[in-house]
Amino acid sequence: MATTLPDAEYDRRLERVRDRIAESQADAGVWFGATSIEYLTGFDHIQTERPVALAITPDRAEITVPRLEVERVESNPRIDAVHGYHDYPGGRPIAIAVEMLSGLGAESVLADADGAPGTMGYEGPALSAFVDVTEQSWVSRMRWEKSAAEIDLIRESARWGNLAHRYLAEYTEVGEHPATVSQRASMEASRAMLDTLGSEYVARTRGTGPAFAGYITGPQTRLPHGHTANRRLQEGDVLVTGASANVDGYHSELERTMFLGEPSDEQVHYFELMVEAQDVAIDALGPGVPIADVDEAVDAYAEEQGISDLLQHHVGHNIGMDGHEPPYIDRGWGDHCENEHTPYDADDAVMRPGHVWTIEPGIYTDEYGYRHSDTIAITDDGIEWLTYFPRELEANVIPVE
Amino acid sequence: MATTLPDAEYDRRLERVRDRIAESQADAGVWFGATSIEYLTGFDHIQTERPVALAITPDRAEITVPRLEVERVESNPRIDAVHGYHDYPGGRPIAIAVEMLSGLGAESVLADADGAPGTMGYEGPALSAFVDVTEQSWVSRMRWEKSAAEIDLIRESARWGNLAHRYLAEYTEVGEHPATVSQRASMEASRAMLDTLGSEYVARTRGTGPAFAGYITGPQTRLPHGHTANRRLQEGDVLVTGASANVDGYHSELERTMFLGEPSDEQVHYFELMVEAQDVAIDALGPGVPIADVDEAVDAYAEEQGISDLLQHHVGHNIGMDGHEPPYIDRGWGDHCENEHTPYDADDAVMRPGHVWTIEPGIYTDEYGYRHSDTIAITDDGIEWLTYFPRELEANVIPVE
Repeated sequence: MATTLPDAEYDRRLERVRDRIAESQADAGVWFGATSIEYLTGFDHIQTERPVALAITPDRAEITVPRLEVERVESNPRIDAVHGYHDYPGGRPIAIAVEMLSGLGAESVLADADGAPGTMGYEGPALSAFVDVTEQSWVSRMRWEKSAAEIDLIRESARWGNLAHRYLAEYTEVGEHPATVSQRASMEASRAMLDTLGSEYVARTRGTGPAFAGYITGPQTRLPHGHTANRRLQEGDVLVTGASANVDGYHSELERTMFLGEPSDEQVHYFELMVEAQDVAIDALGPGVPIADVDEAVDAYAEEQGISDLLQHHVGHNIGMDGHEPPYIDRGWGDHCENEHTPYDADDAVMRPGHVWTIEPGIYTDEYGYRHSDTIAITDDGIEWLTYFPRELEANVIPVE
Repeated sequence: MATTLPDAEYDRRLERVRDRIAESQADAGVWFGATSIEYLTGFDHIQTERPVALAITPDRAEITVPRLEVERVESNPRIDAVHGYHDYPGGRPIAIAVEMLSGLGAESVLADADGAPGTMGYEGPALSAFVDVTEQSWVSRMRWEKSAAEIDLIRESARWGNLAHRYLAEYTEVGEHPATVSQRASMEASRAMLDTLGSEYVARTRGTGPAFAGYITGPQTRLPHGHTANRRLQEGDVLVTGASANVDGYHSELERTMFLGEPSDEQVHYFELMVEAQDVAIDALGPGVPIADVDEAVDAYAEEQGISDLLQHHVGHNIGMDGHEPPYIDRGWGDHCENEHTPYDADDAVMRPGHVWTIEPGIYTDEYGYRHSDTIAITDDGIEWLTYFPRELEANVIPVE
């Protein structure tokens, strides 16, 4: 049962960035992004207006944090020194970070940004006002190929997402509020998850989750990014669900098109086309496959079926620490990798073992939307399904008494 | 019952940015930030790797969006034309946005950033590769002073946050999971909110909310940004709660320090110090007051009481569309406004009617944390409390049977 990332993962990650620093002329790597800082050190925090700056040199890792994070990072075995500032702006966060760099002898750095991000109205100086800065996006790129340990966490996430989804289907009834059904399913699955995983599991949430299931219902399904409407569930509703769980900061994605009561012939027709489009995408997956080809395969299928104008988005994205991560299964991905505005090249345009994809081509008519999403890992010689809720029509019709 | 912002608000906001554009030499204003785009037009969307760009000229408002948002923006009466691109990156979002600007005759623009933000791994060219760009943060600054209509929404949010908080207190019992109690309180308050507001209310959430209450419990309360631990509630637990609700995109903040069972003398001592610190801050609030003075008043009180080292953060922040917004009640705010790295000046260092503050000085011992947070608006001649859950000890002790 994988519920936390082993220490060896962090050692390997830090070693990789230290190798990159050693190859460069710079004295240190610097990160302001919360997800990158968590990826390298295991210290997770909520990114706010208060800057956090991690500095890695060949032999040290030091961090500048607001006072309120000091205890949360002091016990971290991978961080050698913590520099606290009282608060933003009076605590002079960037001045403290610059002092930290000075103490490390870092006059030139490779940073994930030229200063802290403008989250929640943060405003402050560029880091390059104090030291030589070259920008890098190493961690963002390192996150593409997941290790076996990372995929274990996503697999565990998929189990609890599946339970939340099962409860969602079970609690769905004519006359209920979609929000209430979603919250009840999330609550019961989260309770089961906490009771099952016990003290092994470190919750990363405050008041919500860790397991989640919800949906867009009825006419809102036409919109891929619709909201949960303030309407009661009705017989004949199409439901587009979504379920996941947070396991040590990693996520999976499970979505199903379901029907409340028997679907119409037209609804069955679009459902079957959607499942076939998903099959086309999944059949195209594999190590060495150009990423854009998978989107193009679905595009060709849609053209063949005369439904090209019903597709509103590409086939999928990577998933892991973030809900959406690059690379994206998009017909333009290959060109994007060779574009002067991105740090990628032709090697970055193909699928590799360790990529974890959501596969979710959607069909949107004037009335309803139809979309399944499964989370699928690329292996050395094929694929592994991480989500497993049944995809076929019979399993996705909720009977109305 | 205020559940949506009146059209006149958007008219006024657009007029203000059009005045700023007219005063400048630029042809258009451009916004990439989701919150700013919502503030100006009422079009809300989830910010992802897919760029959205809004352009405002003296007589037009046009927008570039991914295909999946087209229907959500087409019906918007404030947007004159919608330019859809298929998806990122193949749909060439920035090229489409540049074509939009070209069609508007905009060769020089005032933009909230020099290109789309790097959300979820987005990478693309700077806008300045195509047009003259001067950066501005007008909307961010405009949001500081809330109108009466905005405060109405925050007041309505506080009502539902209060109900969620009341349920949280009611469902709290020894042996329960904190996450389960939180989710149940959020579910019941959300259900009541949806049933009360009915079709007047447009939910902005997917599966969660719109009302929320949760807490940090026991030893985790020592950490201002702790997580909900995977532990059952015990007699003697200190609870630091948080409750809110989303009303047309606006939020309030209610936090209380509660006790599960009778508190110890030491716990009562710190609770009373915390309430007094909050009183000191609230007494200092008012129009024309230097913002930093309020933090300094609490600091002086803490010094007087010999508890300076138990304070880990400043007194509070503004709240509205975001959970944390500038300005911040921080001893350094005055200097920050006259700092070369910020667009503010001495006028921005004082409290003004329409500011909506959270007042939340916290005390953190080695064992527990103590913090109330109330949402309070500055009026023309004083203050208005928007949150109203009782603050005194008796109301915050949950009896154990």
